[in-house]
Amino acid sequence: MQTKRIRDILRHGQPDETIIIQGWVRTTRQLKEFTFMEVNDGSSMGNLQVVIDVNIPNYNNVIKTLNTGSSVEVSGILVTSLGKGQRIELKASSVQVYGDANPETYPLQKKRHSFEFLRTIGHLRSRTNTMGAVMRVRNACATAIHNFFQERDFLWVHTPIITASDCEGAGELFTVTNFDLNKIPRNKQQEIDFDKDFFGKRAYLTVSGQLEAEVMAMAFQNVYTFGPTFRAENSNTSRHLAEFWMVEPEMAFCDLQGDQDLAEEFLKYIFKYVLETCPEDMEFFNERIDKSVLETANNIINNEFERITYTEAVKLLEKADKQFEYAVEWGIDLQSEHERYLAEELFKKPLIVTNYPAAIKAFYMRLNEDQKTVAAMDVLAPKIGEIIGGSQREERLDVLERRIAQMGIISDDLWWYLDLRRYGTVPHAGFGLGFERLVQFMTGMGNIRDVIPFPRTPLSAEF
Amino acid sequence: MQTKRIRDILRHGQPDETIIIQGWVRTTRQLKEFTFMEVNDGSSMGNLQVVIDVNIPNYNNVIKTLNTGSSVEVSGILVTSLGKGQRIELKASSVQVYGDANPETYPLQKKRHSFEFLRTIGHLRSRTNTMGAVMRVRNACATAIHNFFQERDFLWVHTPIITASDCEGAGELFTVTNFDLNKIPRNKQQEIDFDKDFFGKRAYLTVSGQLEAEVMAMAFQNVYTFGPTFRAENSNTSRHLAEFWMVEPEMAFCDLQGDQDLAEEFLKYIFKYVLETCPEDMEFFNERIDKSVLETANNIINNEFERITYTEAVKLLEKADKQFEYAVEWGIDLQSEHERYLAEELFKKPLIVTNYPAAIKAFYMRLNEDQKTVAAMDVLAPKIGEIIGGSQREERLDVLERRIAQMGIISDDLWWYLDLRRYGTVPHAGFGLGFERLVQFMTGMGNIRDVIPFPRTPLSAEF
Repeated sequence: MQTKRIRDILRHGQPDETIIIQGWVRTTRQLKEFTFMEVNDGSSMGNLQVVIDVNIPNYNNVIKTLNTGSSVEVSGILVTSLGKGQRIELKASSVQVYGDANPETYPLQKKRHSFEFLRTIGHLRSRTNTMGAVMRVRNACATAIHNFFQERDFLWVHTPIITASDCEGAGELFTVTNFDLNKIPRNKQQEIDFDKDFFGKRAYLTVSGQLEAEVMAMAFQNVYTFGPTFRAENSNTSRHLAEFWMVEPEMAFCDLQGDQDLAEEFLKYIFKYVLETCPEDMEFFNERIDKSVLETANNIINNEFERITYTEAVKLLEKADKQFEYAVEWGIDLQSEHERYLAEELFKKPLIVTNYPAAIKAFYMRLNEDQKTVAAMDVLAPKIGEIIGGSQREERLDVLERRIAQMGIISDDLWWYLDLRRYGTVPHAGFGLGFERLVQFMTGMGNIRDVIPFPRTPLSAEF
Repeated sequence: MQTKRIRDILRHGQPDETIIIQGWVRTTRQLKEFTFMEVNDGSSMGNLQVVIDVNIPNYNNVIKTLNTGSSVEVSGILVTSLGKGQRIELKASSVQVYGDANPETYPLQKKRHSFEFLRTIGHLRSRTNTMGAVMRVRNACATAIHNFFQERDFLWVHTPIITASDCEGAGELFTVTNFDLNKIPRNKQQEIDFDKDFFGKRAYLTVSGQLEAEVMAMAFQNVYTFGPTFRAENSNTSRHLAEFWMVEPEMAFCDLQGDQDLAEEFLKYIFKYVLETCPEDMEFFNERIDKSVLETANNIINNEFERITYTEAVKLLEKADKQFEYAVEWGIDLQSEHERYLAEELFKKPLIVTNYPAAIKAFYMRLNEDQKTVAAMDVLAPKIGEIIGGSQREERLDVLERRIAQMGIISDDLWWYLDLRRYGTVPHAGFGLGFERLVQFMTGMGNIRDVIPFPRTPLSAEF
């Protein structure tokens, strides 16, 4: 007899098939001649209804241990369900309980739990409907990302997690050390002697793999990273994690135009893939979490993204019949309220804003001919704001060196990055996508801590 | 005109196609009426020969900047090659040089470089034949891993990198901190006050995602991790990295038998995938790096793995007509020499050794009925030794608690892990594969630092 996943049974199962299922009990209802039991195996939202006749072997003992949360293996035959709510059900011929779950202490009884509470039981919360759906959609997003890039001949490159360079300067860095913190060695000048630390120098957790991805793009043309990155910012918000996953493609022989094209194609691909592979989960989010989830997804898939320059965006914002908290003028960094106005109210679809003022963007972004703006882009989406940030990179050695000097960056650690411009430099471009932001966007989940299995935030590194 | 990757041109290109290529110059040879140039674009081992006629626009200026390492875009028409060594070549109609490379300073001139030297130019080494092939095979291995698990309905789960738990105890841990190391706060007892650190407690870099993967398997049945893990061991060997990637599947409702089946299927799948997708690179490794690479791969693919118990293995080693450095008796941990004897000399194919003595294995491995051995397995392969280690996990709460106590592990941090046995526990199993070991195995590369883009080792965290 074949062990089947419940998702496949609910989608395709036919009466008279004999099968085995394995999973966890969600609910039971004991009648005189039967017990009804709903079983979930994590393959989808759906539970399979199992009908347990009093005449199956060992009925009384089995029933005693069938609580919410118990793990079971059921053999039986599929039959057309006469009850409401399901097409098909499993008539059990035998039920084995592997482990029960004491109803007095098992926290996931049949009632709604707040996401706050569920975070305190991070080791159990994936067994709930919502978190189960989140993790399946998260996996589908991740798979879509790999498929997208592999189909297009990009290499997945593993850029380092531990880095000795802090010149990206994207917020605060975690220190990685092998020192005994009770006796940190000091040199003659009484400074901390990092020569004696594991790597012989001060080391941090990476904030981005971009610079190393550029190295790899200069050998393989098209590459992408997909790995964890870190921020030691003390931000206790629903949008920040200390540890999160990032996707960073980097393309040689590519300009800002190509960068925008790829970003648009990329987002459309992921949304399409998830709608196709997780329809039950997406329906659930649309019904229970955020009624606009499916509309947003279809909006992404079916619309050409608007493309405007920063300068045009500022003009549109200045003309807007709307009072912003932060006043708009050329030179400011666009705030979330501005981005949302453009995407949600004005264009009502995703847009890409390009060519931002050089002064507010990173040193590696390519200086435009006007000498004031850089070839940067942000992809803004309704409801979420910025979802992707990218740029064409500065490939001209002299211009890059000048910008590094202007911005007061100590370039000693960047000798290798400059070498890329010294030897066989090419126009190149790339972007970054915060993976958890994407999953939030896809699912409508309000708090970023609820779209990653084990969130790391200030004062919290449980499990 | 279409931009094409050189790998595809070499495989399928036909005379009279007009195309564009983009890449980096490997060599040039200037004759009176032509210049020959070999271009590589990172898509494969192979270079495309380009013939540049003196009559193309701007010939003299172009030629001046065509050095080894220069980046170029060439338009032209494919023609049958009359020269030796290639089927087809590109007759250039125009050549654009994006960036040149000064032959006086560019380190990658046409001569062989030692791998030691190449490590000092980690930002350029991927442009060499060997490192290019390694990174392509590495990407193919990674893709095969995702494909294998996704096809089998496993979820990719991202287990945390920063962890507050040190109970896995697999060697030394890196500390992650946000403290200013010059003024580490202390409490009244003058102990370091980790309450004041970012996570409110002492934090480390993970050594394994297994325990968290077990959490996820208890919700989704089949999951896998694929992410970075860390060891702060001061091992300056050709087999150790401080930062490396691990793959860890975990299956609910699975025993040691199923674990072995999956491990065997998994390795066969990866080797097959790489032979199919990177034939040129694998040929190269077989010719230039290790003449047994293809034989090893075929040995893995075509043989059923031998399966023996530890107790049988010890008997075979005791009977062996061979002097081992480490004496063999029941209870010892098998040494590399023993593993290699079994795989290379005795069975001449991969084998899986199961049921090791409890005393030498981790606390979470399932105790067998004999009360002396645990349901562990190691997959041993010719030439490489242990490539996979796994086990069925102890799912019985009382037995697990007893083992934790016996081994002197402080279980305060493990409350959630024990909860998995308290609520709906099931037999489950999994294994771990060191990703870089796999790539070494696949390519025959002698030093593990040469199969990861940016190796982290004692005193080295460059780039």
